[in-house]
Amino acid sequence: MCVVHDRLEVESNGKGTREITAEVQSRIDKSGVRNGAVTVFVQHTSCSLTMMENAAPAARRDVERFFDSLVPEDADYEHDDEGVDDMPSHIRMVLTRTSETIPIVDGKMRLGTWQGIFLFEHRRAPHRRRIWLTIIGE
Amino acid sequence: MCVVHDRLEVESNGKGTREITAEVQSRIDKSGVRNGAVTVFVQHTSCSLTMMENAAPAARRDVERFFDSLVPEDADYEHDDEGVDDMPSHIRMVLTRTSETIPIVDGKMRLGTWQGIFLFEHRRAPHRRRIWLTIIGE
Amino acid sequence: MCVVHDRLEVESNGKGTREITAEVQSRIDKSGVRNGAVTVFVQHTSCSLTMMENAAPAARRDVERFFDSLVPEDADYEHDDEGVDDMPSHIRMVLTRTSETIPIVDGKMRLGTWQGIFLFEHRRAPHRRRIWLTIIGE
Repeated sequence: MCVVHDRLEVESNGKGTREITAEVQSRIDKSGVRNGAVTVFVQHTSCSLTMMENAAPAARRDVERFFDSLVPEDADYEHDDEGVDDMPSHIRMVLTRTSETIPIVDGKMRLGTWQGIFLFEHRRAPHRRRIWLTIIGE
Repeated sequence: MCVVHDRLEVESNGKGTREITAEVQSRIDKSGVRNGAVTVFVQHTSCSLTMMENAAPAARRDVERFFDSLVPEDADYEHDDEGVDDMPSHIRMVLTRTSETIPIVDGKMRLGTWQGIFLFEHRRAPHRRRIWLTIIGE
Repeated sequence: MCVVHDRLEVESNGKGTREITAEVQSRIDKSGVRNGAVTVFVQHTSCSLTMMENAAPAARRDVERFFDSLVPEDADYEHDDEGVDDMPSHIRMVLTRTSETIPIVDGKMRLGTWQGIFLFEHRRAPHRRRIWLTIIGE
């Protein structure tokens, strides 16, 4: 049994979802861990993590539109000194996820057929985002 | 320290919540792990995982009605070629959970008194759902 | 590799967010684990866990107001025999988190600069809340 830490740096292109499944798998390959679990952890509070259908881009656009509508940028927020997209980004993060733990079996993440791991960027401007990976197993 | 993987196959009966706490515990019993944690991971993007009150069925019905209302089936989705319940199911999954990690102490999950683990099915038709369990401990 | 369990008892002061980052870190220090991960698990269904911006109290108040508005206490719930704040508390729990797994590197949680761990109390009355910590590592 061992612990292997690794890190991804992902350039977001402003608001939207960006798949990171292949990058996470490549770090598991590098770790040598064959059986265990990987925890994917986003080190930010204005973007988040989500699992999503990875085949239909239209489905992801619907998700993004849903959050735009549920947590609008033009609502009356008390915390409004970092831009109109700042406070909605924190709320959207709270409604989604920061960490996700995924089984590793025979060296591969045991995801469903259409299941992908996505960084969900909530800020308008591009950001460099840090995602920590903790792989525990053997 | 060891890793034990196991899998549940759960028949959902269409939309709604279905408790899986006892099935998860029985797989922990079988694993022989006495101290550690279990990660429950749903391998799908149109159903999800949630913790809920396990004593009051009315409370679960309120949760289900809330999601029906928050993410309506009759909204105007771009991704609409797999049925009116498909796109809402992905959004409801994003708003809830895919993985949950629960402590195991003296061979038992350390859940609160009224706390249960539920599969939350978002599709209208019955589905056979796969849930992966990764038990890490000693 | 080892597993260390520990527990926090947190007094909530009624509805709102309360930071627990320092308490979690102090239990990691005590555990002696230098590399691994900690799972923070809330043993309740009427309060929850969230990550949040820990610098701006106004941002937390906006989050709290958002949930008050999204899941109102005066809606018509079927499960209404434990007070007007009971059913909304379960729904708000489902929309946020019960467990979160955070990397431990060189003895410290690898949180982002502004990232804190919060107990999110959804009941009006003060409650004594139990949070289980499972630290796995070496």
